[in-house]
Amino acid sequence: MKLEGLSLIGHGTARPKGEPMHPINPATGETLQPAYHRADLEDVDRAAQLAWQAFRRFRLLPAAARARLLRRIAEQIEAHAPEIQQRAHLETALPLPRLQAEMARTCHQLRLFASLIEQGWCWDARVDHPDPARQPVPKPDVRSHLIPLGPVAVFSSSNFPLAFSVAGGDTASALAAGCTVIVKAHQNHMGTSELVGRLIQQAVRECDAPEGTFSLLFGRGSEIGQALVRHPMIKAVGFTGSRKGGRALMDAAAARPEPIPLYAEMGSINPVFLLPGALHERAEAIATGLHGSVTLGVGQFCTCPGLILAPAGPDTDRFLEKLSQLMANTPPGVMLTSELCAAYHAGVEACLKIPGVRRLTPPLAQSDPAGTRAAAALLVTTAEVFLAHETLMEEVFGPSTLVVLCTERSQMLEIAERIEGQLTATIHATPEELLEARDLVQALELKVGRLVFNGFPTGVEVCHAMVHGGPYPATSDGRSTSVGTRAILRFLRPVCYQNFPDAALPETLQENNPLGLLRIVDGRPEPGRPDNPVAG
Amino acid sequence: MKLEGLSLIGHGTARPKGEPMHPINPATGETLQPAYHRADLEDVDRAAQLAWQAFRRFRLLPAAARARLLRRIAEQIEAHAPEIQQRAHLETALPLPRLQAEMARTCHQLRLFASLIEQGWCWDARVDHPDPARQPVPKPDVRSHLIPLGPVAVFSSSNFPLAFSVAGGDTASALAAGCTVIVKAHQNHMGTSELVGRLIQQAVRECDAPEGTFSLLFGRGSEIGQALVRHPMIKAVGFTGSRKGGRALMDAAAARPEPIPLYAEMGSINPVFLLPGALHERAEAIATGLHGSVTLGVGQFCTCPGLILAPAGPDTDRFLEKLSQLMANTPPGVMLTSELCAAYHAGVEACLKIPGVRRLTPPLAQSDPAGTRAAAALLVTTAEVFLAHETLMEEVFGPSTLVVLCTERSQMLEIAERIEGQLTATIHATPEELLEARDLVQALELKVGRLVFNGFPTGVEVCHAMVHGGPYPATSDGRSTSVGTRAILRFLRPVCYQNFPDAALPETLQENNPLGLLRIVDGRPEPGRPDNPVAG
Repeated sequence: MKLEGLSLIGHGTARPKGEPMHPINPATGETLQPAYHRADLEDVDRAAQLAWQAFRRFRLLPAAARARLLRRIAEQIEAHAPEIQQRAHLETALPLPRLQAEMARTCHQLRLFASLIEQGWCWDARVDHPDPARQPVPKPDVRSHLIPLGPVAVFSSSNFPLAFSVAGGDTASALAAGCTVIVKAHQNHMGTSELVGRLIQQAVRECDAPEGTFSLLFGRGSEIGQALVRHPMIKAVGFTGSRKGGRALMDAAAARPEPIPLYAEMGSINPVFLLPGALHERAEAIATGLHGSVTLGVGQFCTCPGLILAPAGPDTDRFLEKLSQLMANTPPGVMLTSELCAAYHAGVEACLKIPGVRRLTPPLAQSDPAGTRAAAALLVTTAEVFLAHETLMEEVFGPSTLVVLCTERSQMLEIAERIEGQLTATIHATPEELLEARDLVQALELKVGRLVFNGFPTGVEVCHAMVHGGPYPATSDGRSTSVGTRAILRFLRPVCYQNFPDAALPETLQENNPLGLLRIVDGRPEPGRPDNPVAG
Repeated sequence: MKLEGLSLIGHGTARPKGEPMHPINPATGETLQPAYHRADLEDVDRAAQLAWQAFRRFRLLPAAARARLLRRIAEQIEAHAPEIQQRAHLETALPLPRLQAEMARTCHQLRLFASLIEQGWCWDARVDHPDPARQPVPKPDVRSHLIPLGPVAVFSSSNFPLAFSVAGGDTASALAAGCTVIVKAHQNHMGTSELVGRLIQQAVRECDAPEGTFSLLFGRGSEIGQALVRHPMIKAVGFTGSRKGGRALMDAAAARPEPIPLYAEMGSINPVFLLPGALHERAEAIATGLHGSVTLGVGQFCTCPGLILAPAGPDTDRFLEKLSQLMANTPPGVMLTSELCAAYHAGVEACLKIPGVRRLTPPLAQSDPAGTRAAAALLVTTAEVFLAHETLMEEVFGPSTLVVLCTERSQMLEIAERIEGQLTATIHATPEELLEARDLVQALELKVGRLVFNGFPTGVEVCHAMVHGGPYPATSDGRSTSVGTRAILRFLRPVCYQNFPDAALPETLQENNPLGLLRIVDGRPEPGRPDNPVAG
């Protein structure tokens, strides 16, 4: 495909205008072609109007038709895999095997949502039968299910150019819900975005979905991003990025004349609690696993474990020795942008300015012409110092982690209660220790979306039970997840029908359950037909 | 029980202080005893700290223990029924039969949520089994369910002194979820609130729930209400009241350092669409039903039908004749407060100032010493006038309704698309007309929480499928309902467990499903044990 550098609006492109933006290769600092033209407010409005018009038809398509669209997008992406991966590699410096895995995940997500809506238990269909003889008033027939909210604006993340970008989880779950989508492309992988966007555009045409089901806009978040969130035709927003950017959009969404839900996933320090028995048994293995998790993708994961709590003692000394060795021997990696890399260095430096924080790994030695190279950093401090400095509780986005030595078990619990909301928390323990650490588990349940036992937080499984969410500031809305099939609930709301004749009801709610769905009937779950297609 | 006029904090009472507030009998304007002492910021903080401490234990009680508490509250209320109803009648001027029905509903709600959490399908339990052999990485064991958010602040409504007040739907659903509750009592029925509050306090003690599971504060919304919503230990808010009050709290909740969900139900004009066939068949019957719905409880229902769309013509003339006769012959009713009554009169007058709006009923004739008497008002205008004046699209809280005569069917559709979000919309039609009016149904689906066919919007059935919600400004959050078992979802969020040993998992998620719950296992619904208790 030839890249044109233009926003995609409905079936066409926006006109070139304004000052163009140039993609940059973070490995070399070189400018990439083509330049990208910024969408303006008129483009935002056109995309939003089209998205609204399209929504009115798109939401009424049978789930099977929307499933077809999701699968077609996955097929299109797979058919153009090398081209997309090459471009993403150029724009992000992420290694090709990682991009291949990320693409597989992206296509798996699209297909998982396709299966989900075919099976249809996600519509939360409920039927309460009438009782005309009830006193003092007859009981009506009441039936309800979930319907889509309307056009959704999706803000791509920089660190997942595929799985959390144009055809990523937000887009997949919104389209599955029956919402139309406008993606604000991330400026760090505009070519990749255009490639994927064109394939979605083509799939929309091939599947006869209405024009406006999908649009893709290039531009700055502070300009068109704010305009998108404020547009009256936009009814929900998905965002993955920084806390500052997420909060600005949250505030804009809440201040609208008609406030709308905004789902921002804003990252986390993902604390890891090492209990004595586990350290005694496997100090080196845990160090090796954590090293992999901290440095994976140059630490550019929202689930990167940035905080490790360990009991002071000889087992932790062994753990630290192994971990510092591994971190020191990690070759510097290329981060996504020079801005992120500068912020990483500043974050590490800010921690080191605090008396009592030591660095166990050498700083970056090699030359760094593009200003994007980051050396892995291992910092150590005590629980007292940690609890006295909020700076240490903030995320440093990149390949660093802070080990906090606890002299009392109670300090671990205190830290679990002090930290802000997190995407994940991890406990390494023997099974017996875990059972005894119920207080710690219970404290962490109130802080996180996901608890990991004897594992590592990176690598978020895309499945039905996954929760990639967590209390603020990990996300804007701890009631939601951006990964896994529960993500579809972000874009749905219930509507109920009272005393409707069967023929006028949506199929989901008709008496003979023609779609064979799981439903709650008079308060009892009814599992639906066994031959109902099953999510894969 | 002897009323003391003090806030209830945990197992005790707040100290008397500050300038007291006096309840007023709206029928006479007389002051009622005792005077109520306002809680101050210290009381708010004490209640919130207690609620947080209690939450940490309360959420971990077995669902059966929380169900016992809910049932005990219902029993206590029933045991004191005459006393509570008498006091509510004095404070609200609502007739005793209405208060008896409202109490039955309140107790039904409490028991419905008790059954719901015993049956447990509301926890959305999901299990994804592991696959250690999966390439390129093993698939982990992932399990998730919903857990409570934390202490919830509940703002009682004025128009339902029982069902949307101290032991109302918000309190019932929050306690069922495992949240602790602080109720901000409505100043218009403080004695009723104290009576019910003391019974809950007693039930909490009898059921060994932790102190702080429930508190009740008296005071003004602008003082302690704002402080409650801003308190860091409060994690969600339920509110029923005016749009102005609701929006002020929404803004406060969104502006917190840690924003929290705020569920405000702010009322609605509940449009009713009369199609020609139905009018031809039953003009008088529809008029009779609408008259009952508009004037029920002196029109003080959020589901009061304030807007009626009808095709101009002889059948509508018959309908109008009947309706104006019934409305004119309705004795004036006593509204809840003189402020509400003054706002009602001002609202009707504002409509009448618009050229082309006529009143078909006489204004209030009798003397009104307490300033609380409202005469039913029937206004008529044309679609052109309606569409040109936003004032006519605003709620007038009280026993009035506006009939809009449409000369074209397209005007009905235009109005359906122009109005704001609504709790309900009603269509009167023949079954054939309804099928042909799919465009109208589809337009209304995007505007409302509940669609009623050939019925009337007042009378909200408490059941599993009910949706008492709808897009802003009907509510702050169209994804929620404040009536029906889905209301529990407002106070829950998902948390997931990765690779946890079975013994360390909550019972909800253990492999052998000891609670016999409906669960989603590897993407398939598994209905659970048939002997699992069933919601009643």
